Amino acid sequence: MSFARSAVCVKCGAEFEATPTVTTCKKCGGILDIKYDYEGIKKALTPAKLKDRREQTMWRYMEFLPVDPDVVGRINKLKVGCSPLYKVDRLAEKLGLGSLWVKDDGINPTASLKDRASAMAVVKATEAGMTTIACSSTGNAASSLAGNAAAAGYKTYIFVPERAPKGKVSQLMIFGANVISVEGNYEETFKLSAEAIDRFGWYNRNAAINPYLMEGKKTVGLEIAEQLDFKMPDYIAISVGDGCTIGGLWKGLKDLHAAGFIDRLPRIISVQSTGCYPINRAVMENKPWEPMEENTIADSIAVGVPRNPDKAMNAIRESNGICVNVTDEEILAAMKLLGGYGIFGEPAGVTGTAGLKKACEEGLIPKGASVVSVVTGNGLKDTANAIKAAGEPMKLRPELPLLIEAFKKAGKPLE
Amino acid sequence: MSFARSAVCVKCGAEFEATPTVTTCKKCGGILDIKYDYEGIKKALTPAKLKDRREQTMWRYMEFLPVDPDVVGRINKLKVGCSPLYKVDRLAEKLGLGSLWVKDDGINPTASLKDRASAMAVVKATEAGMTTIACSSTGNAASSLAGNAAAAGYKTYIFVPERAPKGKVSQLMIFGANVISVEGNYEETFKLSAEAIDRFGWYNRNAAINPYLMEGKKTVGLEIAEQLDFKMPDYIAISVGDGCTIGGLWKGLKDLHAAGFIDRLPRIISVQSTGCYPINRAVMENKPWEPMEENTIADSIAVGVPRNPDKAMNAIRESNGICVNVTDEEILAAMKLLGGYGIFGEPAGVTGTAGLKKACEEGLIPKGASVVSVVTGNGLKDTANAIKAAGEPMKLRPELPLLIEAFKKAGKPLE
Repeated sequence: MSFARSAVCVKCGAEFEATPTVTTCKKCGGILDIKYDYEGIKKALTPAKLKDRREQTMWRYMEFLPVDPDVVGRINKLKVGCSPLYKVDRLAEKLGLGSLWVKDDGINPTASLKDRASAMAVVKATEAGMTTIACSSTGNAASSLAGNAAAAGYKTYIFVPERAPKGKVSQLMIFGANVISVEGNYEETFKLSAEAIDRFGWYNRNAAINPYLMEGKKTVGLEIAEQLDFKMPDYIAISVGDGCTIGGLWKGLKDLHAAGFIDRLPRIISVQSTGCYPINRAVMENKPWEPMEENTIADSIAVGVPRNPDKAMNAIRESNGICVNVTDEEILAAMKLLGGYGIFGEPAGVTGTAGLKKACEEGLIPKGASVVSVVTGNGLKDTANAIKAAGEPMKLRPELPLLIEAFKKAGKPLE
Repeated sequence: MSFARSAVCVKCGAEFEATPTVTTCKKCGGILDIKYDYEGIKKALTPAKLKDRREQTMWRYMEFLPVDPDVVGRINKLKVGCSPLYKVDRLAEKLGLGSLWVKDDGINPTASLKDRASAMAVVKATEAGMTTIACSSTGNAASSLAGNAAAAGYKTYIFVPERAPKGKVSQLMIFGANVISVEGNYEETFKLSAEAIDRFGWYNRNAAINPYLMEGKKTVGLEIAEQLDFKMPDYIAISVGDGCTIGGLWKGLKDLHAAGFIDRLPRIISVQSTGCYPINRAVMENKPWEPMEENTIADSIAVGVPRNPDKAMNAIRESNGICVNVTDEEILAAMKLLGGYGIFGEPAGVTGTAGLKKACEEGLIPKGASVVSVVTGNGLKDTANAIKAAGEPMKLRPELPLLIEAFKKAGKPLE
């Protein structure tokens, strides 16, 4: 049994039954939010009970999830979630922070945080009696859907615009997805996917339409809290694109708060690119959001028309959060910075850390604060930008004296 | 305290003290094997005790590892090990097997099984009082060393031949390794690394010289056993290059057997490429091994002069194992095959599965057998070959009737 009780519109407050196929508000078109019986959760689960649980995936937080546990148990699933939270003291010191943890979500099966949403989509499709799932995307949403659906033995139809990079398409093809390369732009691709989903009755995994995806993503927040023994940090930094991920993180924290697992909420640091920051701009200028160009190497957050701006802006405002925008150079520098601690993130994956660094340097965060920075995707997804970030190795003929000389010249003698 | 007792030469049987910097046999040059006080392990640890342990990394098997637990506790480590073991019933049925599990070790922090060896190298370097580690490699050994050492805050010197692919070098640079691109072939690169290691007294992470690397790798065998509740399968299939990984897997299983955790040992299926199979050839023809050319797309196992043939051949012979060689086409087909279950492996990573499929088709394995297949590296490490394996997506203009028509023509109508 599930503690989910209803789906409530974030815009007009209308309440709907939380059926597996519920999408957006029938009254105003707003996106829905899943509400729970928090008193029921409180009675069923405690931090101590959780500690003894052996399940090492996102499904360990079953009471907080809008699913039928029997259905979850029946499905062949990838091992999503329970990603590491690394305490990086040397970096904390460098940034003048009291403590800093990095949540490396690039360690998920298809190498991004989106696995949490796609794993949820597979479960909800099953509850709805459907075994075909569709979405339009070229990025992490698509690869995570293709991988998680493949594990379950389900069919996927994935619509990509023709300009989608070959490497990313190949990952979808490897997972056995039916990939349709559409001779048109993203808008036309999305429209064709919507028509086909309507016509054939496939399960819809388009973000910001399906409210359950965010319930999957929120597990990143549940994990951070549990990994810190439910003592929350002052801030959590995260990159923001269409707004679903920051919204999911915040939902997870609020659910924990409502169920009495944590006694305070952290402030969210929302990080976007200086080349594309419609959500941060709206919050900073206290105006409705407006579309922007998409000028950044961080492709996963190059979203000029965010699909989930309401939940994202709520997360920043409700948490008394901070908005930071970073340049591509700052993003590349953050790739290299985190690499120095053994963490390899894709550009959008490290954007949160780039913003955190900037916030520290600009005094937006007090000295000694405690912070978690979420890395949302693996650097192996984008080796072209890794090459840009990494610099060139030293080149020399195979002679020891040349090696010694070269390092001396470079100002870092061998030792 | 550790239960490791000595280091014994696999060739001449000479016994040495298991100091942190022990390398090869001082008498005959043979590679050493770490021996334990198995009675001591038996008293200290039981399967039931293990089950209650919360540590979710390779270090949960502390009693079986040649390390000082206090040292392990002190180091900043990546989350290595405890990778998923997926039961893939649909694939078992397809291959005529009774049961089949896939161990996905590409999920490790730097995306390969080699993280287990490098994590061990970092601990042993620490025990030796050293914080600089070196190796020569272009592949997974190098990236795993760079990543795991970075987490610990240690320096690395990594020697690569100039032909090393830029993408792989960039990963090393991201992790902050001192990368030396040597204008010469692999032999010259290795020689320069050996000279520099001697001269500067760095910790040596060259495989098949340092006996502890295999003790790290063996944890993949410990995990498989624990994940199967210590009921061993009939076979374990794994790809073989320089021989260290198959040797490590076998060592883990033998250690478990010696300590009474399992009551039988599986047969090992050793899979190499038809373009490079010196170890399998030696076993199949019952002759000493001889060098071979390196003609395969599976770069991580393209090893014409294996560095650890003795332990590899022992693993196959002692386990009454099976040798299978597969073509590049069969390797690419295995990438696509495993992708259909949500598992994305690099070419060398899926070679074990390619060999298992062939062994089933050729009747080398009885119908109904139980098998584990180990995937040793993540497909994101080699997207160029993923593109080869995956095929092309369907291309069309954004019109629903065209979509329906195209799928009908392809013989798989939409549903």
